[in-house]
Amino acid sequence: MGGPSIAFLVFDGLTPLDFVGPFEVLCRLPGATTRIVSPSGGDIAAAGGRMRVGADAAIAEVEAADVLIVPGGPGARTLMHDPAVTAWVARIAASARFTASVCTGALILGGAGLLDGREANTHWAARPLLKTFGAVPVARRIVDHGTLFTAAGVSAGIDLALLLAARIAGEDVARAIQLRIEYDPQPPFDSGSAETADPRIRDLSATVG
Amino acid sequence: MGGPSIAFLVFDGLTPLDFVGPFEVLCRLPGATTRIVSPSGGDIAAAGGRMRVGADAAIAEVEAADVLIVPGGPGARTLMHDPAVTAWVARIAASARFTASVCTGALILGGAGLLDGREANTHWAARPLLKTFGAVPVARRIVDHGTLFTAAGVSAGIDLALLLAARIAGEDVARAIQLRIEYDPQPPFDSGSAETADPRIRDLSATVG
Repeated sequence: MGGPSIAFLVFDGLTPLDFVGPFEVLCRLPGATTRIVSPSGGDIAAAGGRMRVGADAAIAEVEAADVLIVPGGPGARTLMHDPAVTAWVARIAASARFTASVCTGALILGGAGLLDGREANTHWAARPLLKTFGAVPVARRIVDHGTLFTAAGVSAGIDLALLLAARIAGEDVARAIQLRIEYDPQPPFDSGSAETADPRIRDLSATVG
Repeated sequence: MGGPSIAFLVFDGLTPLDFVGPFEVLCRLPGATTRIVSPSGGDIAAAGGRMRVGADAAIAEVEAADVLIVPGGPGARTLMHDPAVTAWVARIAASARFTASVCTGALILGGAGLLDGREANTHWAARPLLKTFGAVPVARRIVDHGTLFTAAGVSAGIDLALLLAARIAGEDVARAIQLRIEYDPQPPFDSGSAETADPRIRDLSATVG
């Protein structure tokens, strides 16, 4: 009995948690097979060159996946204009059961033509860019079109992945994964939403980007 | 003006989110320098061999750090008995301003002799093991001894790192990082705590470990 095949796009300029949040959840799905896919198949430099992550395959080697996860990071602003990458994303998404972005991964989905005329979200600081791709920016943590999902910035990928896990394997399995990763969040501060953040903190956040 | 030097121990059998949650928060501290440190200095295999992560240095090459982060994963149960690793952890912790574990990283701190007679936490499923090291297991998400911290499983590392960020750089900076990673958690289910989880889900969670 086969579990889902899950492809994660990674690239230079990746924000590591965008990728690892969903990976940690989805790799635990019963029978799941994962492929970490980079444009060239080589290792990628995440977090501004502070972290190197290995890839399993180049985009040219991956023909299909049941689930496609597209994380973000500063590098997404280059990839959204890279025709080899956007064509690959469009091709995989065409037959995938679920395609989902985290953070500015939405810009890559946009470049692949997947957001035209649709509501979508991305990192709050990049939200206006979605209009470039014909999308309708909304501030929801997860924008759910049934087979296509866009999540808010960085840590939103964990919430997204639990939702996907439930769609793929049922709510009990998703709840079991949530328990296993002890995702009972207790942030020490209440400062995670751009809608409610103090403007002073919002300005300061540009220095920790 | 120097920011903190932060060392992250990584190893074969790492749970990736244990490491990447704190990394994503702490690498954003103004002026921070990060070192990803593996026992041999080579790449490590995380998530049961599904993900390869590069290291910057071997433990033998790192003499000191302001902050030491010790994540967990199945490999921690080997490392807690590895004298080269536990001696290194003890040595770095002796002069570090902050030493913190996530998940079963606490077992490595235990092996290093840092938890003897102290309250500590770890992944809920490993909590009884803490007594092996003379620690007093408690079910708090973060156990804070001022310079020594142990956090609960996997995702608790994000909460821990925001607390550390505030201690290191002040609450405004920590709040700005929280906003930047859009950590406004909205789990689709309420199933992240072993204290309140349905026993049926707790049993099922052993299959997604």
